[in-house]
Amino acid sequence: MTTTRQDGRAVDELRPVTIERGWSEQAEGSALISFGRTRVLCTASFTPGVPRWLTGKGTGWVTAEYAMLPRATNERSARESVKGKLGGRTHEISRLIGRSLRAVVDTKALGENTIVLDCDVLQADGGTRTAAITGAYVALVDAIEWARAEGHVRKNATVLSGSVAAISVGIVKGEPLLDLPYVEDVAAETDMNVVATGDGRFVEVQGTAEGAPFDRAELDRLLDLALVGTARLTELQRAALAS
Amino acid sequence: MTTTRQDGRAVDELRPVTIERGWSEQAEGSALISFGRTRVLCTASFTPGVPRWLTGKGTGWVTAEYAMLPRATNERSARESVKGKLGGRTHEISRLIGRSLRAVVDTKALGENTIVLDCDVLQADGGTRTAAITGAYVALVDAIEWARAEGHVRKNATVLSGSVAAISVGIVKGEPLLDLPYVEDVAAETDMNVVATGDGRFVEVQGTAEGAPFDRAELDRLLDLALVGTARLTELQRAALAS
Amino acid sequence: MTTTRQDGRAVDELRPVTIERGWSEQAEGSALISFGRTRVLCTASFTPGVPRWLTGKGTGWVTAEYAMLPRATNERSARESVKGKLGGRTHEISRLIGRSLRAVVDTKALGENTIVLDCDVLQADGGTRTAAITGAYVALVDAIEWARAEGHVRKNATVLSGSVAAISVGIVKGEPLLDLPYVEDVAAETDMNVVATGDGRFVEVQGTAEGAPFDRAELDRLLDLALVGTARLTELQRAALAS
Amino acid sequence: MTTTRQDGRAVDELRPVTIERGWSEQAEGSALISFGRTRVLCTASFTPGVPRWLTGKGTGWVTAEYAMLPRATNERSARESVKGKLGGRTHEISRLIGRSLRAVVDTKALGENTIVLDCDVLQADGGTRTAAITGAYVALVDAIEWARAEGHVRKNATVLSGSVAAISVGIVKGEPLLDLPYVEDVAAETDMNVVATGDGRFVEVQGTAEGAPFDRAELDRLLDLALVGTARLTELQRAALAS
Amino acid sequence: MTTTRQDGRAVDELRPVTIERGWSEQAEGSALISFGRTRVLCTASFTPGVPRWLTGKGTGWVTAEYAMLPRATNERSARESVKGKLGGRTHEISRLIGRSLRAVVDTKALGENTIVLDCDVLQADGGTRTAAITGAYVALVDAIEWARAEGHVRKNATVLSGSVAAISVGIVKGEPLLDLPYVEDVAAETDMNVVATGDGRFVEVQGTAEGAPFDRAELDRLLDLALVGTARLTELQRAALAS
Amino acid sequence: MTTTRQDGRAVDELRPVTIERGWSEQAEGSALISFGRTRVLCTASFTPGVPRWLTGKGTGWVTAEYAMLPRATNERSARESVKGKLGGRTHEISRLIGRSLRAVVDTKALGENTIVLDCDVLQADGGTRTAAITGAYVALVDAIEWARAEGHVRKNATVLSGSVAAISVGIVKGEPLLDLPYVEDVAAETDMNVVATGDGRFVEVQGTAEGAPFDRAELDRLLDLALVGTARLTELQRAALAS
Repeated sequence: MTTTRQDGRAVDELRPVTIERGWSEQAEGSALISFGRTRVLCTASFTPGVPRWLTGKGTGWVTAEYAMLPRATNERSARESVKGKLGGRTHEISRLIGRSLRAVVDTKALGENTIVLDCDVLQADGGTRTAAITGAYVALVDAIEWARAEGHVRKNATVLSGSVAAISVGIVKGEPLLDLPYVEDVAAETDMNVVATGDGRFVEVQGTAEGAPFDRAELDRLLDLALVGTARLTELQRAALAS
Repeated sequence: MTTTRQDGRAVDELRPVTIERGWSEQAEGSALISFGRTRVLCTASFTPGVPRWLTGKGTGWVTAEYAMLPRATNERSARESVKGKLGGRTHEISRLIGRSLRAVVDTKALGENTIVLDCDVLQADGGTRTAAITGAYVALVDAIEWARAEGHVRKNATVLSGSVAAISVGIVKGEPLLDLPYVEDVAAETDMNVVATGDGRFVEVQGTAEGAPFDRAELDRLLDLALVGTARLTELQRAALAS
Repeated sequence: MTTTRQDGRAVDELRPVTIERGWSEQAEGSALISFGRTRVLCTASFTPGVPRWLTGKGTGWVTAEYAMLPRATNERSARESVKGKLGGRTHEISRLIGRSLRAVVDTKALGENTIVLDCDVLQADGGTRTAAITGAYVALVDAIEWARAEGHVRKNATVLSGSVAAISVGIVKGEPLLDLPYVEDVAAETDMNVVATGDGRFVEVQGTAEGAPFDRAELDRLLDLALVGTARLTELQRAALAS
Repeated sequence: MTTTRQDGRAVDELRPVTIERGWSEQAEGSALISFGRTRVLCTASFTPGVPRWLTGKGTGWVTAEYAMLPRATNERSARESVKGKLGGRTHEISRLIGRSLRAVVDTKALGENTIVLDCDVLQADGGTRTAAITGAYVALVDAIEWARAEGHVRKNATVLSGSVAAISVGIVKGEPLLDLPYVEDVAAETDMNVVATGDGRFVEVQGTAEGAPFDRAELDRLLDLALVGTARLTELQRAALAS
Repeated sequence: MTTTRQDGRAVDELRPVTIERGWSEQAEGSALISFGRTRVLCTASFTPGVPRWLTGKGTGWVTAEYAMLPRATNERSARESVKGKLGGRTHEISRLIGRSLRAVVDTKALGENTIVLDCDVLQADGGTRTAAITGAYVALVDAIEWARAEGHVRKNATVLSGSVAAISVGIVKGEPLLDLPYVEDVAAETDMNVVATGDGRFVEVQGTAEGAPFDRAELDRLLDLALVGTARLTELQRAALAS
Repeated sequence: MTTTRQDGRAVDELRPVTIERGWSEQAEGSALISFGRTRVLCTASFTPGVPRWLTGKGTGWVTAEYAMLPRATNERSARESVKGKLGGRTHEISRLIGRSLRAVVDTKALGENTIVLDCDVLQADGGTRTAAITGAYVALVDAIEWARAEGHVRKNATVLSGSVAAISVGIVKGEPLLDLPYVEDVAAETDMNVVATGDGRFVEVQGTAEGAPFDRAELDRLLDLALVGTARLTELQRAALAS
């Protein structure tokens, strides 16, 4: 199994990952996260109160919106604001990010408050949705601590039950690989996004056969690889939050 | 482990499934599929030619659209045509159905022809997306045979590399269950949709923790259960197509 | 003048009409109505309360929405939800159905309650709007009785002042005909939809010259024919509601 | 039968009608038509060529668009351009105007040319759609003559098979009345719009029971009255075109 | 410097301007204003109350909407209501008109009332936005006086701090000109719209180089010319309001 | 008159301005420009060919799109892509940026090629539109040089007739100030955006009275100040392009 990846990485190696915490000076929490050339600006906006349909139920609301700048990619794509509607891919990823973060939030402990996670892809080179989830977690932590300091959340409330990180894995030319950049992603036969907690349990598993269907053994190897990645990302999140 | 399901089924038992092939007299292929009270009308529309961006590439195009009648559910929901935009859920399911069916289509063998699979939920009681995929496969087979008979597809072309079926599984009160109706679906801690080929390989695996994250052992049991379901559905598809 | 209609019917004969009452198990009232190959699923959704602009006026609200599945017709048409707006025809027919049913409803007697009539054409072969009105009446009756049983409507309130049914008539090759299927509809010089009460009075008369303008005598013969049709449909509605 | 109408008219009398032909200096044909306080600016825009779906079929295309200025009415209504979609009423009236004018146009004789009739209500006091049809006919005649002079239409082609005019009639307090202003329109039990040719045949008959259903005798009296009105409007159109 | 303008005017001469005050009988204030062939119908709609976000702040709201009939211009343009969205130009001009009128309104003195200024271009030949502002001022005065008479505005409140008028200027073939019709506008190297108060101060100055950039001396000459124009328009507004 | 600005700047002093040329690795030209806390990512996307309506005319096309991330500002605003339409402000600024850059482009020399300038505000603290223009110029230069190197533009073609930069000025508490951050902008009585060429001529002058109208002397002082700013920005652009 001597794959040579175009960028020289081992099959189970992440691209260089950086997390610039607090990049935005306006938001309650923010992080500019990079996986190689992929760069996503994640902000967490905290607002006291909840949407009307939740009012009075004693629980908070966490939601996410994902978007891509028109020239994040190699060829410019039309703005969704100009087209007047969100594409299916945008919707789907926004929903995935929201679900993933809600999985570690105790909305009762959050109280009747709303947090919106905006994940805007400034530059795209594969793995934007998983970078978004990983960066949004850092922004989320800061927004919750801001809210605690401002008295919107109780001092000793345990709002987060754990951390969450995400990574893509895939099978390229029969070889399972971790953290696919664009060139590997388009060549993958199977493609999987895995969202996991800091203690290694699954929040989301989304595997898709792009070419031939995949068997149980292949699925197992992809899951192994993904957990290696999310464990490493969990460390990087901790380091960023400790700085 | 003696779960009593509300409808008396065993944990690995499907609801009564019926497939009324040819229900629509207008489409090139059609099937009205029921999983208990869930009823989805699947039609396959064949058109010679492909969208402009594919013209001249010698390959066909298969796509899907999913929708729900406003009163398919227990409470009426607003029409997406009246709201003027598709919701994220609709987009996401339409994309899933399209990918699932394309996984068994050889678009070169299809030639420059388009097949649109419309899956309209007439009544919803859980598992509508998996019923849609399972029924759409039957409609697809008939549309391809129609096209072959009409001379749009070569006589001996192998357009389909296999069959595809889908089922939902989930963990309810700690118990993995097959084919969840609405009451079980809303109570599920983990919820998974599995699309598999007739020979038991995976096309899509989409697992989501609705409550607590799930571990590797739970994931494995859900996959086992799902393959029991898709195997049974594969038989029912064959029977419908043989009739 | 011995017309031979393609399907062998007499000039004043309806196609086979069936009304499957209660086809949908989710709605408060429902009917799957067929006029030959034309099949429309009509549901009546009852909700306590009225839109804000009616609140406190002591009157109820009845409205209708008409739509067609994309492959109801011989060639697939694009979904209005995908196009992001309703076409003029859809709007116009929805408004017609709503007006027609309101003509026999005493909204004071209904009280501050809302009934939405959804008429979804599953298969189209001419006369879909008139089938929709005729079927929606059956669904409406059941929804009102459901509401009475549930205590939302007073026990002895006379909500309905009568019944309503509708039929299309037209002049084809100079000959007035009752209940036009698609092949006759496209060939018609004049085309008329008539909505009438069970006692033979008019609720709507919409006649259009598709070819040459029509004179008073032709108009009179079309009205005669239409009343034959609505009288027969009134009997079929009664039979369905008696079953 | 001694009705006293609020404005002192006899039951079969039109409001003062004026037709200012050529009001717009930009369009190929135009007319500012008034029925009492109702004022509609009708323009006919001629363009060589037809929409793509008609190209090469040797026939022309005539279509219409109806709209109302936001403060045409007593209370300001929101602009449809601001709301981002056309209401059902606007769609329905635009379609009616288009059909009515097409009824007297021989599209073969028009050749592959397009005429768009824009009917913009500057002030509304009942009967705007019928005023629009009546005024649009005058604009249409001028646009066709312009096109003939410019050589877009053959010198001796008979493009128009006749003239067309329209009027509203209705039953108010049991009394059939001609040409209803707003105050009568809202009080009408039955309301009918009739489009007729200059020789007294029907192009459209649209009668609606706003209150109780209407019987055959009432329908007949309304049709009689309408034909009195359209005959008078035909004379006024001729006079305007002769000037 | 002996320019000959196509219509024979001096470089600092306005086209014939007419203001028909009260042209619309439905609105609280209205004016049909013409600058040569350019004709704009301006209405002012007064409503007690303000939008929700202003409620309880003791100030009123004045806003404007600009639009053009599809055949106001030499070639028909598509309706924005049909396209389903406002173009950038429409938005921009609506905002300009609103700002310009608000500059002379004391919203405290107006009280919690709303005035909407609708400026609909019936015929366009250059200078439509400046004609709209000039006419809207007349409609605004009348709407305020109506509101005062009805008791919605205090008897002695000074709602208007002055008058406002607007004109276009531009450099054509090196020559600064006042009040450009369409033929001059398309030929202009620099194009400027100036909104000024009756006492000659600026409310808006919007200059754009369409060809070569302009220098400070050119800017100064354009401003001089514009103030000549707005002074003359101020007189015409006074005359219209005095009639 | 010794104003003390909150950030200690002199009245004619810019905020710290940085231009990170080539920040985006995907676009043909790019610059991340900062004016204090205001940060705008400008990319220039070059595509051979022009929109259909320009084809065959031998001229190129330069256009711009401006947008703001939802959390660029102190309070989160809704995404325009989610709302489904562009606001008036967005449209207006996009048009301004496009016009400003086109003022220095010789579209004949560009040939039949298209350049789209995307200006995305990552963080907003006043002056975003003028920062966008200033940064977009740098991106534009690089895209043109890229195109020249790739052979899309002739070697010796003079595509740019000069440089362009922009700045905001305003009157705050009677004092004319250069380069207003948000706190000054909201307090300004008059607010002006000036776009000028590197040799000090005007491309756009947009002055607005937010409070009292402004007189000629005030206008003159604002223009003086603006030219100081654009001259300084021109130097910074040169430095960035020389690096």
